[in-house]
Amino acid sequence: MHIGLIGLGRMGGNMRTRMRNAGLTVVGYSRDPQVRDVDSLESLVAALPSPKVVWVMIPAGEPTRSTIADLKELLGEGDLVVDGGNSKYTDDAVNAASLAEKGIGFVDCGVSGGVWGLQNGYALMYGGSADDAAKVMPAFEALKPADTPDGLVHCGTTPGAGHFAKMVHNGIEYAMMQAYAEGWELLEKVDIVDNVPEIFASWRTGTVVRSWLLDLFVDQLRADEHLDGLRGYAEDSGEGRWTVEAAIENAVPMPAISASLFARFVSRQEDDVAMKAIAAMRAGFGGHSIQRSEPGTA
Amino acid sequence: MHIGLIGLGRMGGNMRTRMRNAGLTVVGYSRDPQVRDVDSLESLVAALPSPKVVWVMIPAGEPTRSTIADLKELLGEGDLVVDGGNSKYTDDAVNAASLAEKGIGFVDCGVSGGVWGLQNGYALMYGGSADDAAKVMPAFEALKPADTPDGLVHCGTTPGAGHFAKMVHNGIEYAMMQAYAEGWELLEKVDIVDNVPEIFASWRTGTVVRSWLLDLFVDQLRADEHLDGLRGYAEDSGEGRWTVEAAIENAVPMPAISASLFARFVSRQEDDVAMKAIAAMRAGFGGHSIQRSEPGTA
Amino acid sequence: MHIGLIGLGRMGGNMRTRMRNAGLTVVGYSRDPQVRDVDSLESLVAALPSPKVVWVMIPAGEPTRSTIADLKELLGEGDLVVDGGNSKYTDDAVNAASLAEKGIGFVDCGVSGGVWGLQNGYALMYGGSADDAAKVMPAFEALKPADTPDGLVHCGTTPGAGHFAKMVHNGIEYAMMQAYAEGWELLEKVDIVDNVPEIFASWRTGTVVRSWLLDLFVDQLRADEHLDGLRGYAEDSGEGRWTVEAAIENAVPMPAISASLFARFVSRQEDDVAMKAIAAMRAGFGGHSIQRSEPGTA
Amino acid sequence: MHIGLIGLGRMGGNMRTRMRNAGLTVVGYSRDPQVRDVDSLESLVAALPSPKVVWVMIPAGEPTRSTIADLKELLGEGDLVVDGGNSKYTDDAVNAASLAEKGIGFVDCGVSGGVWGLQNGYALMYGGSADDAAKVMPAFEALKPADTPDGLVHCGTTPGAGHFAKMVHNGIEYAMMQAYAEGWELLEKVDIVDNVPEIFASWRTGTVVRSWLLDLFVDQLRADEHLDGLRGYAEDSGEGRWTVEAAIENAVPMPAISASLFARFVSRQEDDVAMKAIAAMRAGFGGHSIQRSEPGTA
Repeated sequence: MHIGLIGLGRMGGNMRTRMRNAGLTVVGYSRDPQVRDVDSLESLVAALPSPKVVWVMIPAGEPTRSTIADLKELLGEGDLVVDGGNSKYTDDAVNAASLAEKGIGFVDCGVSGGVWGLQNGYALMYGGSADDAAKVMPAFEALKPADTPDGLVHCGTTPGAGHFAKMVHNGIEYAMMQAYAEGWELLEKVDIVDNVPEIFASWRTGTVVRSWLLDLFVDQLRADEHLDGLRGYAEDSGEGRWTVEAAIENAVPMPAISASLFARFVSRQEDDVAMKAIAAMRAGFGGHSIQRSEPGTA
Repeated sequence: MHIGLIGLGRMGGNMRTRMRNAGLTVVGYSRDPQVRDVDSLESLVAALPSPKVVWVMIPAGEPTRSTIADLKELLGEGDLVVDGGNSKYTDDAVNAASLAEKGIGFVDCGVSGGVWGLQNGYALMYGGSADDAAKVMPAFEALKPADTPDGLVHCGTTPGAGHFAKMVHNGIEYAMMQAYAEGWELLEKVDIVDNVPEIFASWRTGTVVRSWLLDLFVDQLRADEHLDGLRGYAEDSGEGRWTVEAAIENAVPMPAISASLFARFVSRQEDDVAMKAIAAMRAGFGGHSIQRSEPGTA
Repeated sequence: MHIGLIGLGRMGGNMRTRMRNAGLTVVGYSRDPQVRDVDSLESLVAALPSPKVVWVMIPAGEPTRSTIADLKELLGEGDLVVDGGNSKYTDDAVNAASLAEKGIGFVDCGVSGGVWGLQNGYALMYGGSADDAAKVMPAFEALKPADTPDGLVHCGTTPGAGHFAKMVHNGIEYAMMQAYAEGWELLEKVDIVDNVPEIFASWRTGTVVRSWLLDLFVDQLRADEHLDGLRGYAEDSGEGRWTVEAAIENAVPMPAISASLFARFVSRQEDDVAMKAIAAMRAGFGGHSIQRSEPGTA
Repeated sequence: MHIGLIGLGRMGGNMRTRMRNAGLTVVGYSRDPQVRDVDSLESLVAALPSPKVVWVMIPAGEPTRSTIADLKELLGEGDLVVDGGNSKYTDDAVNAASLAEKGIGFVDCGVSGGVWGLQNGYALMYGGSADDAAKVMPAFEALKPADTPDGLVHCGTTPGAGHFAKMVHNGIEYAMMQAYAEGWELLEKVDIVDNVPEIFASWRTGTVVRSWLLDLFVDQLRADEHLDGLRGYAEDSGEGRWTVEAAIENAVPMPAISASLFARFVSRQEDDVAMKAIAAMRAGFGGHSIQRSEPGTA
């Protein structure tokens, strides 16, 4: 199979390698001249036999939307665009409808795997018609983990089904991470237990909480027992936010995942904003202990 | 009525004044020679006619427990001890049973009012037998707000009923404060609204969220529009914690009050502890943006 | 002042009365022939002197959007549309821009007050230019509570500022209600306290938790001590959801308000959906107590 | 090694088998004559060589406390009691101190593994002195998973260290389960995705959320796609509650784990109690949609 790949960053670069290792012919385009195979979308499209399959693997939002708009100009009837980035699922319906005006197919595909994907394979969740999916299936087979039916799933025929599933995956991930983090903080805080890294390490076999995330966490704890080298600061990606928004839109209670998201928000505040309001009310009662800002720091 | 009052701090001192203004004879004891009327518990007890009524208004826990133990030695059949401090409700059963061994009565009384109580009256929630309560009723009448049946309630005959009700009051208070704080943070953050203090001020009449807490908050916002002079830091008292503990013990879901308590906990952390664990797991994925501690700061 | 009022339901009908009581000339239109003054938008607009001011007070979303589109056809340069319904703040920018194409002004106004507004006045939060606001000011003055500067606030010149403030007001309201509800459930559950309605009643004076919501709640508790006559079921309006969505979009932590929203979602589920998944995992462990559905009920 | 085992239920029975398979001599006692090896604690103790090691594997609380009190009478200097049940960590200090009065050692051991433990081994987290632990080490080695250093950890020398770690493990488990449950509910609710069981199944390889819990959940979903056969109802054990209580006592924020606990509480309510209060306040506003109880059902 021939495939065009737009975006050769952390994810795309490794995916090109994995597909080539599987025998696919991959033509890669990136803004970075050092890593790309062709120097324009036009050259990329020209290098592909029909039906042309182009996988877009760049930042979600405007970059992906405008690239797909460009591809609409370059591709034609029977060709296929795959959006493998972290696009919001609502973008997919718009992109699919636009491409369909020229008979171009569309598949959205959530990709999980990070830096481990090159070696272990990527988990792929895709949405779109069976016919469209068939055109990109050799790439899916190359990218997914070997020797297992897992790691590749058709989430639905509606555009966005794949990104929706990937989005929920990330929401779940947030709360799983928060679960370990809360337990770790409690174990760190109390005097009754010693040897917290080895407690977590012991959980990797035979317990209910064993997981790949736990394995990763143990490696970090063994390298830096109290995580002194890290700041208590976590960014969040769009997926976590969109998961909670989708939950609210659908009247689905989501207390643990939303709590995990909010914990990340708080971690990024220099001073805790809402608590300033709490402090103000406590000051209003009179007599409560509050802390004034340092002169000149407000 | 004659009453002995132990503890003449921020609360007790004003309560002595309010009771005296109402015509009661109050004998006050404190460790502080500047403010006390007598210099020992013995003298305080000696100054009271029988049946002697002694109101304890000192820090909860060991100080209150040991003072009540001392009073048990000094008082006798038919006398009464009132615990008006912030004792945990489970202490009351122990104290009541101990005093009962000598025929001394016991009333527990949660007191709300802060620095506003002297002028406006204190809200009183008490537990104990009707007979015991009758002995202290003139003091209750003097302390409570005037011209209203509100502000005084018999919460139950079981020792601790009053402190339990006061504890729940404080739990509710936490979540109400958090409600305003979350709304304020959002209004502060967005560009679409100006004039946030006046928005809150306008809510004081005609809206669903009008309350005394709102009034206090508006005064603070008008004095310091963005609360620049305050740190986002809030302590918590025992009552908030005990409310959630009692909820858990009774299988009562308490998501908003517990969230309010946890928000205070987080506000007191220099670096966000749980988020260090999140950062560690993200570091384990590879490729995620995390922040390392400054050299020498860990 | 002359004003056209579209929508004469629970809110609009009483607002017409309050404005007429203040001496305004109100021309009301509704789909209901029984209550309306004119039988078409055309007649309503024709009845107004220039500059014409039309207040839209109908359900948010499509009904409001299409009515404003109709008014755009009927009104002209210098006229004004006021959206007093519960529109999402993002709708306002669209409506304002559309009306501006014909030189028609726009003010968005969040209105609080419910059935109490007729007598006590409505709290009004508005957004728009000072010039536009001036045209509707006599109506604002008639509707707001009397004898107070509160109850009327200019939230910003950006369209949507008023609805945004009203939206946050409702979010705060959710968490305040949840605060009382959680405290009430705990007091109801335990044996240590009796007389829960009187405990809440006593809090109306002298405490930190006193509020108008508390007053309402006490009336209900006195009429039905254990609320046996009510189902534990609560709907939610758009404002609560939009508040949390806006918080997420702005990276504002909102744990208590979101918890309050989720509690309402859960209350409307016949069977607890997420807990079916928990039960499934527990079944997977083996040995845990789970409950099977009744035959034929699944 | 010889060991006495008290409690031969679901856990204890399989543990006896696993220890015997490893070559240990196990004397088991239970109230059930069908499964026990001896018919009294006296006989059990008599059957053991010194130093005698007795493992208690019965329900936490009063049963465990009274059994340990009985063993104190029967054992002597140098013997050892192991509490392998789900005791609260605060019980362990009391039991250890009591046994120490006669020179009897004590080890507390949290055990994870459920019905899978017989085959795969049990994860063991223990607290106590190294000398005491050495006496029971052959049993630990027999019970733990084979061919791994994981599954056995010395959590500290303070009595209760093991149960504390196990308690936190269970708290983490609650939030992990809640994470999957919330994600599942959202995927079930929306139309955009089909084939939810296969989405979860696909996640078992290559994703961030892969775990043993996920494996269990997939088996259940494949057997009953929409979990129609299960009621949305989940009990909670002491460990989840104690985890949150310990967090509160130590000022550790625990929003996700507490949310998971509260979700279980709600799932067990026939009618949502707190929401009755919300409905009452909404009824007080006037005009809101609430639901009255059916006549005769209150």
